[in-house]
Amino acid sequence: MHHGHGDDLYHYAGVRINFSSNVYNHFDHQALYAHLAAHLDSIAHYPEPAPSRLEHEVADALELQPDEVMVCSGATEAIYLIAQAHHGAWSAVVEPTFAEYADACRMHGHRLTAVESLEDCLLTEWPDLLWLCNPNNPTGTVTSRDFLLAQIDAHPSTLFVVDASYAPFTDKPLLSPAEAVARHNVVLLHSMTKRFAVPGLRLGFLTASASVLGRLRELQLPWSVNSLAQEAARYLLAHEEDYPLPLDEILRETRRVARALRSYVDVLPTDSHMLLCRLRSGTAAELKEHLAKHHGILIRDASNFRGLTPAHFRIAVQTPRENDLLIEAIAKAAGQGFPDESLQGEDC
Amino acid sequence: MHHGHGDDLYHYAGVRINFSSNVYNHFDHQALYAHLAAHLDSIAHYPEPAPSRLEHEVADALELQPDEVMVCSGATEAIYLIAQAHHGAWSAVVEPTFAEYADACRMHGHRLTAVESLEDCLLTEWPDLLWLCNPNNPTGTVTSRDFLLAQIDAHPSTLFVVDASYAPFTDKPLLSPAEAVARHNVVLLHSMTKRFAVPGLRLGFLTASASVLGRLRELQLPWSVNSLAQEAARYLLAHEEDYPLPLDEILRETRRVARALRSYVDVLPTDSHMLLCRLRSGTAAELKEHLAKHHGILIRDASNFRGLTPAHFRIAVQTPRENDLLIEAIAKAAGQGFPDESLQGEDC
Repeated sequence: MHHGHGDDLYHYAGVRINFSSNVYNHFDHQALYAHLAAHLDSIAHYPEPAPSRLEHEVADALELQPDEVMVCSGATEAIYLIAQAHHGAWSAVVEPTFAEYADACRMHGHRLTAVESLEDCLLTEWPDLLWLCNPNNPTGTVTSRDFLLAQIDAHPSTLFVVDASYAPFTDKPLLSPAEAVARHNVVLLHSMTKRFAVPGLRLGFLTASASVLGRLRELQLPWSVNSLAQEAARYLLAHEEDYPLPLDEILRETRRVARALRSYVDVLPTDSHMLLCRLRSGTAAELKEHLAKHHGILIRDASNFRGLTPAHFRIAVQTPRENDLLIEAIAKAAGQGFPDESLQGEDC
Repeated sequence: MHHGHGDDLYHYAGVRINFSSNVYNHFDHQALYAHLAAHLDSIAHYPEPAPSRLEHEVADALELQPDEVMVCSGATEAIYLIAQAHHGAWSAVVEPTFAEYADACRMHGHRLTAVESLEDCLLTEWPDLLWLCNPNNPTGTVTSRDFLLAQIDAHPSTLFVVDASYAPFTDKPLLSPAEAVARHNVVLLHSMTKRFAVPGLRLGFLTASASVLGRLRELQLPWSVNSLAQEAARYLLAHEEDYPLPLDEILRETRRVARALRSYVDVLPTDSHMLLCRLRSGTAAELKEHLAKHHGILIRDASNFRGLTPAHFRIAVQTPRENDLLIEAIAKAAGQGFPDESLQGEDC
């Protein structure tokens, strides 16, 4: 298991605002909680070994066939099943990105190549699998739909594993599930965690052609999605209209926060609600501790993303008021000269 | 994924009494439900990547060290992690038994030997792993603690994987967690599903020496146990006294049901709450459909356990009143001459 993921909130009792995971924390879950409270007796029975009923409902919602949908215990389970199904293959991972792709490939004996952008792949031989997070974590950038489709169709022997967990958080055009299932060399990962802000449930699903998914279904463990997660997923699918994502506002806020933070830190370009930043002095680890301790704010130390440095941190934009508090806190820390005061003392 | 597990209740809308899984369905979960209802907001945050806090609490309850406990998403996850950690090994499985051991071994390239009883192993070379369900599913029989300990100590190069999921359902002496962690060639599987009748949550844990578990921890996926399952587990550990298992009554009932059923079917010896039975005519599949349709009773067609026949079925004893209804229903079906009336028609 990889160590050092975001949202390590459980370590920080005093934190009031969580910018550290890529979840938008502002949905009202009361109706979902009421639904679950009324269905708690589902824990007294086994769930279906494979969540077929739920897969039918996801397929209906997306206008796909049931065998073109596979529900998983979070996108994480999906990532490891894909790596396992292609044991010993050659995988290229577009980095910096979510560490689990490379971890899953290593666990299952893949030969691994890191590429800095999809365009780089054009220069060399194509791998058996290409892993792309789109929009990407931690940069928030999007590889264009037209370019990606052209690559998929030009390289039919490469399986394109496209993690679309952050698709709801961009206005850039992306590969659709219908386009994915029509091809035999692409699988799309979807995260109910991110779309509905329910990371504690472990809910994700794949869309791909029946042939791509058939191989993965053989490897999935029985009962991998628990009863309450299945119950919640059915509720969320039926009530998606109660979870409107204010995308325009989020992207506007992202641009505003980026502009404000550029006075203090380098802010990299993004196409979504994530901002990858680089300190001009000090380390992200120090800033993270400082903000947690003195401002009740949690950010993501991004130094452990392969290809990044100790100066990189990541935030996911939240409400305007919360974002203001983050900007103020970073401005104040900058005024004290990164790194934080306790460590400055040691430097003297 | 193996097809044809027990507790396929979701297929049978009219069933009122479920004898088909090995769960004792008579705990009052209201306090647990109230606790979960008050903690539903845990779904809005990531669980710990590895459930360390819960592992500490399990360790405290069992008087073990935290690194001697590993919490899993049901015993099923544990089974596959063990098979994966020993990719390509030689495994012997004491059969007939739960299908997932052999399935997990096959998935991870093990060479597989089926043995009818542990005593048989004495005759031949010892495998890398020996899988034993104790008490066994579906027979309910127990391999004696002293014999098992002697084998473990006599064969230090064999890893004994002992599934103790049904340990709460026998009064025969069994290997304890303290005995397991003191050795380097044994791992015990525990099922909160069975102990507390919460199969929908997916909760199990392993006890073993830190060295045995260390190898498995590297393979466990982050966030494999969801937030509500962790919340429930902590509650159940702290309130185990509210879940008294009436073991004497259950075992007395098991003997009574066995005596009563012997008038109609063969009943195999058991040491726990499970009864494996064999029809003298007709098939378990027919009897299962008949009992579900005409009596609202669900039994486990055990014909797909390796080594059993189409005539085998399994029940887990429930309350005296429910057991009476089962006995009456089987007596009535027997009076009509197994198989059921619809199929008798076809036979004529």
